[in-house]
Amino acid sequence: MIPEDHPRYASLVAREKIADAVKSGIVVIEGASAHGRGEAFDYLLGERTTKSAACAERTAAAFLIRAARPVISVNGNTAALAAGEIGALARASGALVEVNLFHRTEKRMQAITRHLEAHGVVVLQGAAERLLPLAHDRALCLREGIYAADVVLVPLEDGDRCSALVSMGKTVVTIDLNPLSRTARAATVTVVDELTRALPVITRSCEELGADEAAQLVRRHDNARLLAEAVAAMQETLTHAVD
Amino acid sequence: MIPEDHPRYASLVAREKIADAVKSGIVVIEGASAHGRGEAFDYLLGERTTKSAACAERTAAAFLIRAARPVISVNGNTAALAAGEIGALARASGALVEVNLFHRTEKRMQAITRHLEAHGVVVLQGAAERLLPLAHDRALCLREGIYAADVVLVPLEDGDRCSALVSMGKTVVTIDLNPLSRTARAATVTVVDELTRALPVITRSCEELGADEAAQLVRRHDNARLLAEAVAAMQETLTHAVD
Repeated sequence: MIPEDHPRYASLVAREKIADAVKSGIVVIEGASAHGRGEAFDYLLGERTTKSAACAERTAAAFLIRAARPVISVNGNTAALAAGEIGALARASGALVEVNLFHRTEKRMQAITRHLEAHGVVVLQGAAERLLPLAHDRALCLREGIYAADVVLVPLEDGDRCSALVSMGKTVVTIDLNPLSRTARAATVTVVDELTRALPVITRSCEELGADEAAQLVRRHDNARLLAEAVAAMQETLTHAVD
Repeated sequence: MIPEDHPRYASLVAREKIADAVKSGIVVIEGASAHGRGEAFDYLLGERTTKSAACAERTAAAFLIRAARPVISVNGNTAALAAGEIGALARASGALVEVNLFHRTEKRMQAITRHLEAHGVVVLQGAAERLLPLAHDRALCLREGIYAADVVLVPLEDGDRCSALVSMGKTVVTIDLNPLSRTARAATVTVVDELTRALPVITRSCEELGADEAAQLVRRHDNARLLAEAVAAMQETLTHAVD
């Protein structure tokens, strides 16, 4: 048991959730390594939602509520860390939820779907087809889901897949703690924040944003500036560390 | 198979070795997350041995060859990534090799010992006793090994254990990609470099360093400066990324 007053409580709980999810087959071992990479960048971010990340989260919400067919793409790490938060965001934004895995097996697809459903998430079902411009099973998605979406939220996504969705003309919102990653650079909106901090802020913004404010956030959006601000926050942490 | 000309070949091979070692019980899932954290910091370091890391590696060698009873403490990640390199360093430095685990079970102790022996490493054997100033099984080590050592090389070590060894008056050399970690700050010599890049440089230095040069390296050693230079290298990567 991790004591609740531990200064890094949230981070340690997340680490434990990932380890448990590896044991239950929801997360692959590579997912545990990827989680570790995220932890390192979150540490540099100060394990907090920066002002610039909060702006990215409101902007993400603006794109989602203005979308005609928003879809949330969920992988193993996202399901393990934030099943409940994904459900809340789907309800607040009207987005469909599709399970989409990099290391795809039928067994994992089912385990993740069951896990999400146990947390009250309605998961889109159907026969996946090779519809994305990627090799092999990476191309698989649902025709009525990601393929038909105009706005896709892909938390913790691989760079190739993020780029493929952008190349299809979709608006891609990602949540990625590494502001230098290919995903972060390719996406339309990059939220540089930890998943379970980011999702509730996006959800609340979906509920609160008026049409005018949402339109303004979309008009004023500048992803390069958001990324530069995230990098600046990390540089500050490094600078203070050697003071 | 990862193509050898992939720009991040070494990093991807290491990631695969860790995943395989989780499957074979040498590395715990927490070890895979820890490896990911290291990857993130190595990315910021430019995945290269910086000039300052090379200096840290020569200094580490100087401490090892001047030691009366040097010991290399090996955990699961170190064994999985660098069994052969540990053997070479043990031979070049005259250090003993002791297996010492944070998540300690008899089964893992044996699996790691067998893995090291298969790579030609002579592993110190014996009955572990609670000799370190730490709670529970964290205190376990060998009386003739770490307990009796004057210089201990602990790659990829936990902060509490590194501090405990320092508090016992030992010279502690660590290899840690996070220059801000408690381990990095507590150690006598911190090599901020990736394990399989660092170990061969330390080994070669053990073979090449003369007595005068080794004495000078020890005399001139300034760990705070090494850490500051590692942080500066990471800041440079972040700065160039947003140019």
